[in-house]
Amino acid sequence: MQDSPARRIEFWFDFGSNYSYITAMRIVPLAARYGVQVAWQPFLLGPIFKSFGWDSSPFVLQKQKGAYVWKDMVRQCEKYGLPWRQPSSFPRAAVLPSRVALLGEGAPWQDEFCRRVFALNFAQDRDIHTPEAVGGILEELGLPAGELMQAAQADPIKLKLRQQGETATAREVFGAPTFFVGSEMFWGNDRLEDALAFAAGRQPAGQP
Amino acid sequence: MQDSPARRIEFWFDFGSNYSYITAMRIVPLAARYGVQVAWQPFLLGPIFKSFGWDSSPFVLQKQKGAYVWKDMVRQCEKYGLPWRQPSSFPRAAVLPSRVALLGEGAPWQDEFCRRVFALNFAQDRDIHTPEAVGGILEELGLPAGELMQAAQADPIKLKLRQQGETATAREVFGAPTFFVGSEMFWGNDRLEDALAFAAGRQPAGQP
Repeated sequence: MQDSPARRIEFWFDFGSNYSYITAMRIVPLAARYGVQVAWQPFLLGPIFKSFGWDSSPFVLQKQKGAYVWKDMVRQCEKYGLPWRQPSSFPRAAVLPSRVALLGEGAPWQDEFCRRVFALNFAQDRDIHTPEAVGGILEELGLPAGELMQAAQADPIKLKLRQQGETATAREVFGAPTFFVGSEMFWGNDRLEDALAFAAGRQPAGQP
Repeated sequence: MQDSPARRIEFWFDFGSNYSYITAMRIVPLAARYGVQVAWQPFLLGPIFKSFGWDSSPFVLQKQKGAYVWKDMVRQCEKYGLPWRQPSSFPRAAVLPSRVALLGEGAPWQDEFCRRVFALNFAQDRDIHTPEAVGGILEELGLPAGELMQAAQADPIKLKLRQQGETATAREVFGAPTFFVGSEMFWGNDRLEDALAFAAGRQPAGQP
């Protein structure tokens, strides 16, 4: 008996990660075409980079790669039809929106909240960690902003975000976006289609 | 008056680079479909990594990324229909085959020679820097192996390989494969189609 395909993808992301932005804007309609469900998994890359001995993103630490990445983002966002403004601060701190996103697990507003946080960072070049920024998005969505932010800053959610980091470390996540289909890991927006094909039990499309 | 598209792509590669292997096996028929000419540009990544303060490939230095890359290679080679055997030594030294490849610039055997060197490394798990390895490939191609290897080890070609490294550094190359279309840089096998579309003056294909 063959295992049936998972039909579920975990999307591990940091709101400060520019390639996670591209995935966040694409994943829901694309996954629907593959018949795959998306589990949004916010986490913080900073502690993982620190564990490698880095005090920032490799796009900051490696001058040449950094310069390239911003050119690549212009082209990639054009390719995918996404708005893009290079952040004047990178990578942006994302503790508060990550906690709110975790609080929204299973709620109908979670994915739209995440997309709006990403858009604030990468389409509007605005900070995403302040109560004003996060509260503003929650209000736009017609949600009780004050109440949700209070719950997001309480111990259970604080603990949950720390546990996300521990899980990411245990699963050898080294960047974002990272996808899991069962235990199978895929790294980078460039692997999104492959990961969805795997989740759907299809062959990935590759031009020889 | 608009510039006409370049219709030429420079493919910068190191014979020790596993993602360059995938590109090397795909680029000629794919570029033909876009009506684009390929200029093979061998260079050595080692000195570039050294200039970043690294004494090896990031796939060796970063344990988690390294572990992932070998899983990714299995999947990518399956996707593209390429044979794959994980090299028991990585990254392999490639001075001699790089010099021979430079000597072959403009010759009808250059691209097939390059593909066979890559196949030796990544499909057969064999060293590629010895006179036996390189000479064997040249003989398979019906070429005067001794004569070519002697010319490849003479000063003009030695100098040319050093100049390739200087050019790569000046153009801020930080990994391989790297593509140039005019001054526009694209990094990684995952960007091959985008680079070819750019060279052909077409829009790249992106699923929103």
